[in-house]
Amino acid sequence: MTNINGKRLRERIHTLGRVGVAADGRRTRLTASDEDKAGRDLVASWMKEAGLRVVVDQIGNLLGIWETEENRGEAPVMVGSHIDTVINAGQYDGCLGVLAGLELILTLREQGVRTKRPIIVGAFTNEEGVRYSPDMLGSLVYAGGMSCGEALATVGTDGTVLGEELARIGYAGTVRPGFVTPAAFLELHIEQGPIMDAEGYDIGAVDRLQGIRWQKVHIEGAANHAGTTPIRMRADAGLAAAKVNIFCREMVGKSGGVATVGTIAFKPNAVNVIPSQADFTVDLRNPDKAMLDHDEELLSGYLKELEETDKVKITTQRISCFDPVSFDEGICRKIEAAAGRRGLKARRMVSGAGQDAQMLARICPTAMIFVPSVKGISHNPQEFTSDQAAENGANVFLDVVCELANN
Amino acid sequence: MTNINGKRLRERIHTLGRVGVAADGRRTRLTASDEDKAGRDLVASWMKEAGLRVVVDQIGNLLGIWETEENRGEAPVMVGSHIDTVINAGQYDGCLGVLAGLELILTLREQGVRTKRPIIVGAFTNEEGVRYSPDMLGSLVYAGGMSCGEALATVGTDGTVLGEELARIGYAGTVRPGFVTPAAFLELHIEQGPIMDAEGYDIGAVDRLQGIRWQKVHIEGAANHAGTTPIRMRADAGLAAAKVNIFCREMVGKSGGVATVGTIAFKPNAVNVIPSQADFTVDLRNPDKAMLDHDEELLSGYLKELEETDKVKITTQRISCFDPVSFDEGICRKIEAAAGRRGLKARRMVSGAGQDAQMLARICPTAMIFVPSVKGISHNPQEFTSDQAAENGANVFLDVVCELANN
Repeated sequence: MTNINGKRLRERIHTLGRVGVAADGRRTRLTASDEDKAGRDLVASWMKEAGLRVVVDQIGNLLGIWETEENRGEAPVMVGSHIDTVINAGQYDGCLGVLAGLELILTLREQGVRTKRPIIVGAFTNEEGVRYSPDMLGSLVYAGGMSCGEALATVGTDGTVLGEELARIGYAGTVRPGFVTPAAFLELHIEQGPIMDAEGYDIGAVDRLQGIRWQKVHIEGAANHAGTTPIRMRADAGLAAAKVNIFCREMVGKSGGVATVGTIAFKPNAVNVIPSQADFTVDLRNPDKAMLDHDEELLSGYLKELEETDKVKITTQRISCFDPVSFDEGICRKIEAAAGRRGLKARRMVSGAGQDAQMLARICPTAMIFVPSVKGISHNPQEFTSDQAAENGANVFLDVVCELANN
Repeated sequence: MTNINGKRLRERIHTLGRVGVAADGRRTRLTASDEDKAGRDLVASWMKEAGLRVVVDQIGNLLGIWETEENRGEAPVMVGSHIDTVINAGQYDGCLGVLAGLELILTLREQGVRTKRPIIVGAFTNEEGVRYSPDMLGSLVYAGGMSCGEALATVGTDGTVLGEELARIGYAGTVRPGFVTPAAFLELHIEQGPIMDAEGYDIGAVDRLQGIRWQKVHIEGAANHAGTTPIRMRADAGLAAAKVNIFCREMVGKSGGVATVGTIAFKPNAVNVIPSQADFTVDLRNPDKAMLDHDEELLSGYLKELEETDKVKITTQRISCFDPVSFDEGICRKIEAAAGRRGLKARRMVSGAGQDAQMLARICPTAMIFVPSVKGISHNPQEFTSDQAAENGANVFLDVVCELANN
């Protein structure tokens, strides 16, 4: 049984993890920033060192291609993830998938293994979506879900234009995104949730990805004196917002999804004034599209009801919408089988977060491998996956990619 | 039947209302500011013009004393309210009571009426409590509820010291607050609530004032990914805050009080992160002290319950506490009788807001007269009481003060 080099993988995770760490100790590599450039330069140098052909496409996706005289022209197996980060990030999110992809190619080359298909490892642009919107932009464009021109014109939260920033850091390539359609795509990623850690699993065979619906909700009531306004005469926007939060929680208890009110603001926000306005966001997710649609309808109906019962006016604005994705059942079985051969405990998983793999799933059979995140912590410097857990994941990754590349 | 001069009262309300109006049209006279000084100077000049002896006490309360050779030495009847305002205020809150008090003395003098007791009209310092805390500071000190030294050392939201600011604007007097104990205190004030306007009443005989309990509530949960964290593993501080809001509303539905969650903030306040912290305020009021105490206990018990059910930690901090006040039944009957004689529709009222009268009630028989606020709007430029409604109130005020001053 071939194994990846755990020490090398670990060291590279830490080396890349040190890129973009500011004086205050916070790690931040926003898309097309100087820190992102430094991370890209490092990964590109490792790709070249591994003998890969490095290609940057027009949206800045960084691809390392391993092909031989024999397999040139065959549809490749693609692996990859991203190296951009959130603000004050951990070091595993995305990077593990890119570096383990590189590691498995290196391992195969060192062992003299020849695969029937080329293998490409990619680092996709702007997965986190912190600086530019939407998230998973590079893989979306690669999969043909958004035109490259539109994507390059995206204006960031800091007023910059993505295309200009990519050119500035030297990662505006000339190759058309999607220039090659993979035979399969596989992404190794940390779970970013607590399930595998809590239940003691080593490997997640990710067969589905939740659909996501974000909306902004604006409730308009009437600002009145908290002491002099009888309950029956109130139009309390804050109370109505509280009811929506609780309604969502009860609703997903039935549908099996999750719901989160993550942001809120009241106006005028004074101790003794009834809130005239409440603005908040609702994040609804469900692996089942029909259930997600149904929850959205239920919520919409409840908001109408509240307008009557609570004498408020409610408007909503959808800010994000991704349908659930089903990954390839065949690849998931290969993941489970590979884990079994290595004596690792595997379970099927649903990805709660958005992933580059969901975009690639539009153009080829795709799945993901999860490894546990301790306590489920992610997007945080305390994000942690043990060396052994990362190595286990990378080895199963290696096994499945080999199978796919010889198929 | 003697009547006040409605035109003069009206004009003075508008004249004082123009003081402290900024270039943007917003009216603001915070305690001991230059705008407050301008308002005080105007009122003091009218007091002098009316032949009153103007006295400023050590906490800056501005008092106009009408006494004659015959009644000097008798315990006076005191009337009054305040002329400090909130930010972007209306023109009636407080000012109506001060100017109608001055108006009724002028009317009595012009009519040659002699009362058995002196009449004092006062404008108390810092009723609104916007710049300095607590609110109703001047009347509290006058009634002996707080030492003058402590009050003068109060540091404002802008870092200023009240005593220094009063000296700066020339309103740090030398007379001891409470230097004279009134035989009775009566305050005319706008309702600041919607009841009288909605129900068509002219005169409110205010026999009680709600007790007020403010607390800050801090809920500590766990920030986790909104997509990857199963419902059963969440500790959602925002959801717990929503439950508290709804619990309070249901609770006061039984106790007959009012409850308001007027402010809120989540941390980290991101769309896709479960709130780890929720900070909000609870404003509880009830005219019945036992009910108010009971509601506080119920809420405290519910917060303990939530710590278990929602896996959160909750701390609270009391930021304001005033027990309910019962006003003088005899004066309330006089108000109702005077309204009846004038063909005005009167009802008993509970003051939902805090008032200077609640402080004076500590040292003498006290009551208030309310006049309607259109739509209940107050602390807002749209605050409005019709000329007729204000005049009606001032006439009943005159009648009752005459009775009290001849008693």
